[in-house]
Amino acid sequence: MTDDALVIFTPSGKRGRFALGTPVLTAARQLGVDLDSVCGGRGICSKCQVQPGIGEFPKHGVTVAANALSGWNAVEERYKSIRGLAEGRRLGCQARVMGDVVIDVPPESQVHKQVIRKSASERVMVMDPATRAVYVAVAEPDMHEPTGDFERLAQALADQWQADDVTANLGILRRLQPALRKGEWNVTVALHKGHNDTHPRILDIWPGYHEGPILGLAIDLGSTTIAAHLCDLRDGRVLASSGVMNPQIRFGEDLMSRVSYAMMNPGGDVEMTRAVRDSLNTLIGAIATEAAVDPAAIYEVVFVCNPVMHHLLLGIDPVELGQAPFALATSGSLSLDARDLDLTAINRAARVYVLPCIAGHVGADAAAVALAEEPNTSKDMVLIVDVGTNAEILLGNESRVLACSSPTGPAFEGAQISSGQRAAPGAIERVEIDPVTKEPRFRVIGSDLWSDDPGFAEATARSGITGICGSGIIEAVAEMRMAGLVDAKGLIGSAEQTGTLRNMPEGRTHSYLLHDGTAQGGPVIMVTQGDIRAIQLAKSALYAGARLLMDEMGIDNVDRVVLAGAFGAHISPKHAMVLGMIPDAPLSAVTSAGNAAGTGARIALCNVAARARIEAVVHRIHKVETAIEPRFQEHFVNANAIPHATDPFPQLAAIVTLPDVSYNTGGGGGTGRRRRS
Amino acid sequence: MTDDALVIFTPSGKRGRFALGTPVLTAARQLGVDLDSVCGGRGICSKCQVQPGIGEFPKHGVTVAANALSGWNAVEERYKSIRGLAEGRRLGCQARVMGDVVIDVPPESQVHKQVIRKSASERVMVMDPATRAVYVAVAEPDMHEPTGDFERLAQALADQWQADDVTANLGILRRLQPALRKGEWNVTVALHKGHNDTHPRILDIWPGYHEGPILGLAIDLGSTTIAAHLCDLRDGRVLASSGVMNPQIRFGEDLMSRVSYAMMNPGGDVEMTRAVRDSLNTLIGAIATEAAVDPAAIYEVVFVCNPVMHHLLLGIDPVELGQAPFALATSGSLSLDARDLDLTAINRAARVYVLPCIAGHVGADAAAVALAEEPNTSKDMVLIVDVGTNAEILLGNESRVLACSSPTGPAFEGAQISSGQRAAPGAIERVEIDPVTKEPRFRVIGSDLWSDDPGFAEATARSGITGICGSGIIEAVAEMRMAGLVDAKGLIGSAEQTGTLRNMPEGRTHSYLLHDGTAQGGPVIMVTQGDIRAIQLAKSALYAGARLLMDEMGIDNVDRVVLAGAFGAHISPKHAMVLGMIPDAPLSAVTSAGNAAGTGARIALCNVAARARIEAVVHRIHKVETAIEPRFQEHFVNANAIPHATDPFPQLAAIVTLPDVSYNTGGGGGTGRRRRS
Repeated sequence: MTDDALVIFTPSGKRGRFALGTPVLTAARQLGVDLDSVCGGRGICSKCQVQPGIGEFPKHGVTVAANALSGWNAVEERYKSIRGLAEGRRLGCQARVMGDVVIDVPPESQVHKQVIRKSASERVMVMDPATRAVYVAVAEPDMHEPTGDFERLAQALADQWQADDVTANLGILRRLQPALRKGEWNVTVALHKGHNDTHPRILDIWPGYHEGPILGLAIDLGSTTIAAHLCDLRDGRVLASSGVMNPQIRFGEDLMSRVSYAMMNPGGDVEMTRAVRDSLNTLIGAIATEAAVDPAAIYEVVFVCNPVMHHLLLGIDPVELGQAPFALATSGSLSLDARDLDLTAINRAARVYVLPCIAGHVGADAAAVALAEEPNTSKDMVLIVDVGTNAEILLGNESRVLACSSPTGPAFEGAQISSGQRAAPGAIERVEIDPVTKEPRFRVIGSDLWSDDPGFAEATARSGITGICGSGIIEAVAEMRMAGLVDAKGLIGSAEQTGTLRNMPEGRTHSYLLHDGTAQGGPVIMVTQGDIRAIQLAKSALYAGARLLMDEMGIDNVDRVVLAGAFGAHISPKHAMVLGMIPDAPLSAVTSAGNAAGTGARIALCNVAARARIEAVVHRIHKVETAIEPRFQEHFVNANAIPHATDPFPQLAAIVTLPDVSYNTGGGGGTGRRRRS
Repeated sequence: MTDDALVIFTPSGKRGRFALGTPVLTAARQLGVDLDSVCGGRGICSKCQVQPGIGEFPKHGVTVAANALSGWNAVEERYKSIRGLAEGRRLGCQARVMGDVVIDVPPESQVHKQVIRKSASERVMVMDPATRAVYVAVAEPDMHEPTGDFERLAQALADQWQADDVTANLGILRRLQPALRKGEWNVTVALHKGHNDTHPRILDIWPGYHEGPILGLAIDLGSTTIAAHLCDLRDGRVLASSGVMNPQIRFGEDLMSRVSYAMMNPGGDVEMTRAVRDSLNTLIGAIATEAAVDPAAIYEVVFVCNPVMHHLLLGIDPVELGQAPFALATSGSLSLDARDLDLTAINRAARVYVLPCIAGHVGADAAAVALAEEPNTSKDMVLIVDVGTNAEILLGNESRVLACSSPTGPAFEGAQISSGQRAAPGAIERVEIDPVTKEPRFRVIGSDLWSDDPGFAEATARSGITGICGSGIIEAVAEMRMAGLVDAKGLIGSAEQTGTLRNMPEGRTHSYLLHDGTAQGGPVIMVTQGDIRAIQLAKSALYAGARLLMDEMGIDNVDRVVLAGAFGAHISPKHAMVLGMIPDAPLSAVTSAGNAAGTGARIALCNVAARARIEAVVHRIHKVETAIEPRFQEHFVNANAIPHATDPFPQLAAIVTLPDVSYNTGGGGGTGRRRRS
């Protein structure tokens, strides 16, 4: 009989020989196996749970005896009797190696857990949070060797957790002495180390062993909406997601009008900064209430936002962003105290991370999209468009990534559309028009039924049919084009020209009647010539931006297209392509990434290494400034046609035949360059 | 003719050959000569002024021609015509080497200037401040290579000032863009790098070249008094010194009663913290007004204080300092934002440095004394006593330094003395008693005349003769001992025993009439038996502490004694020794260091390397805890006699013969251990 034994960990496959009696946790650490522990091996936290296997393991060439691990000791028995332990599980810090053994580390016992995202593109997210709780035993004071309690705590953290030279603010120092004494010289601390921090910092302290949540917020601060995800940084779970309107809307719907407000009103930027910060505190309170957690358990906030919101959040006057050369006050990432942003609703010591901006018009939100979608690691050439009031566009692959922004305006979000509304119950979100009868059918948010399905009237009675949202107008216009109700230039034909009475004159132009709700006391929902023009302007800007990046890359086709943005998930790829929002590509290669900016924010929240990664990526992204590229205007004009005046769409043509109609009666389409917003 | 020339700098003696045309500043930098520049060689700041020598320099073996430096260029002419330049001076950044030359760097052109202290012990202080102003030219933004203005400023500081990876708070970022544009891409920044900082941080920013003061405050936060020195960090000048009473006095005269207040009153520590911080802001306002400077130009504050004040300043409940083991919440130095201490009166970005504490009873004030007096570099064995309500005592030499504190109580400051008062005009500060006639003469603060000098009455008519201050009572008691009015045990003899009617009965004891001011409407000033007892208690504690350190060091004599503390400067060494306040030593070896703690604070303020130095020194100082040393009590009892019951005072005996009198009538002296305060 030897006095050591073979230990094999799964799923890592790491193996080594250890002296009999070695705790499993110790063996794991020495082999570099990813096995969690908060209490430092004291049998308190149970984070180090493992599952030993017994019997034959031909793959590993070992036979594991029933007594390969030591029997249950008092600590483990006590833990099991009080807190419970699943069948077959052992505490890695208590169970000792007594013979050759195969030990499985279940996913929840790994520090760097992989969390499946719930969103459309089910990708894994690796947990590596900047803040975690650790339990530590601190030496008692000694009159003969006087050192401060903090210095002894710091020494203990260095010895027991390899956290060297920790720092703490005065709030922690104030609570340190009572906590140490109440915990009889054992405390749990929330330890934070940002990717750029030289030293870890203590964000919170509790007497004894504390098992409270360590929470974080990923916030996508948009021009129109502020969306937040509340995450548990211990396991990556999203506890709640919530959003509020950006209160700055009262200072201007689009970003440029907010910049103007700051220019025209002394102190206007301060007013807008206060509004957004107040609103953040309100949102934080609401989301914490929704998740039934104490907001003081929120230790980290990650922000992604466009450059103007970035500056207004930080309290910087965005005036320079309103004029060439669109200089950012700062483009790098920022690591701040939450109190710097007046975020008083969360823990007083909480930290904030703001992703870097790419350029004066390509913000931290675009960086977040890049973090979530990783064009820089893509083998094939991918075009990513984050559709919003401003579209952020990324194009590239592992060799090179380009970025620009394009001022699409709010039409894609249902604004500036005659019957437009925000995506809410009652809004038409999907449209089909029969190419023969020219009759429409549609679906509204809140019901899965089509308007010609039995029971539709009952299903939508409560919400009503109130208007048309962004994805609805895109489908409506594309369907009108496919049904021959609109020609390539975007002109709506007359009833005569199109053979349907739904096309009605309205002044010198025509409109298409999508739905007449007057009988039910609801509105008449039309698609007007003005609506078509608004969508044309928006989609031309989007396409022109993408095309500019393709020019810069020297390509005419992309391998795949990713639609991102809050409502990117709802856009039908086929309709987007009929409209010419995006370049021609196989339909199967057009996917939705959902709210990629929000996902990027969550990744940066849950994985501190991802922050360093995106900073390096942003540094290498080449920015193209649409505002000064003469070809942008040319691309914009050509993109006004549906789908396009000059670029062929062969892939689209293979599946959709667009009627060759023309309703030109002399009235021209608007091609004026839209102001940036 | 060669194309290079020999350049010799004085006083450093550094020399090297440089290509003809090399600017003097460039040559100085390459040789590591300490030549200042704020504007980075742009001929704006004139900090790099040098004085070329002409003629024979046999010592250096060179002859300097009149045209060894280039003629005056336009920049230098312009500077001279507008701002003026002293005879013989040149701007080092403009004048170029054209031949062998000897160049003197005057003291005011050195970065690390040496500043003579104005205090008693004229020592030099080397300037090496953590904060300095630098002028920098920043690249303009480029739409094609978008980076933030801050990132370009940081790059410029790295390139032009070797300040890598600077940081800035949001307040600076907010002001950055207007400043850069107003200064046409030239700005001056106040750059701060603490000794523990990884990165320099920008504390302030101005458009173009800015020549405002960079100020700092050295604050000695005492139990009774808060004293502040306002210094110009460019040259070390003290612009103003001011002090206020510590407002915490209303919570307790001594420190222990303040700790008790915190223990007995929930929130009492918060109340005291608020009081001291409010008072600091008031003091800062007053001192800035006195010096006629903008308090926003104050970028640094250094604090020295005892442990209880240290905790109360930081907002930490001092309750643990009131009971064994006297654990400090933190003993290390602290580098903080001024806003952390609610110091709102100074620059919003200002930084605070708090010196480290040595132990639970030996605070940052003692550390400051060590920094000022440097016992750790002393060849001979030096005893340093910082006399105050609590005495801090240091003993050591370059091999080893010991420290303790001793609870002397406030008697040395005139408190608990029947006619005692604070040192203010009208207070008796010096006393002589004729050994034959037993008649006293004295001096009062506010006049240089002795009481038996002609004109004394007139000179003191305004202030009156109001009481006796700390140094006065020490001299009075020592003189009474020398004149035989008091015996070795501290008993005052009767008129019969001493032969003077000034010794009057008062109950069962006697008092000595020092001055009867009733004729002038003033008080009768007596030295009572109670006064003697109070002084005995205080001096016994002081001596016992010193003796304890000498035991620990294994010595019976010290080579020299330094009296420090606000009133240490006023104590007569002979009288201190007659009293037995300090161990026997040659009188010439007893010196005063004035307010050494305040000096230490100023050193730490003006020299950032000194902060690292004192932290290392404090780490090596061995602390002796008087409260738990059984021998302290024994030393205390023996030290009750005047000068001492058992220790011989041979050096004292050589110059002073103390009358061998005894007035013991059965009444014993108090030897009870005083409570720590």
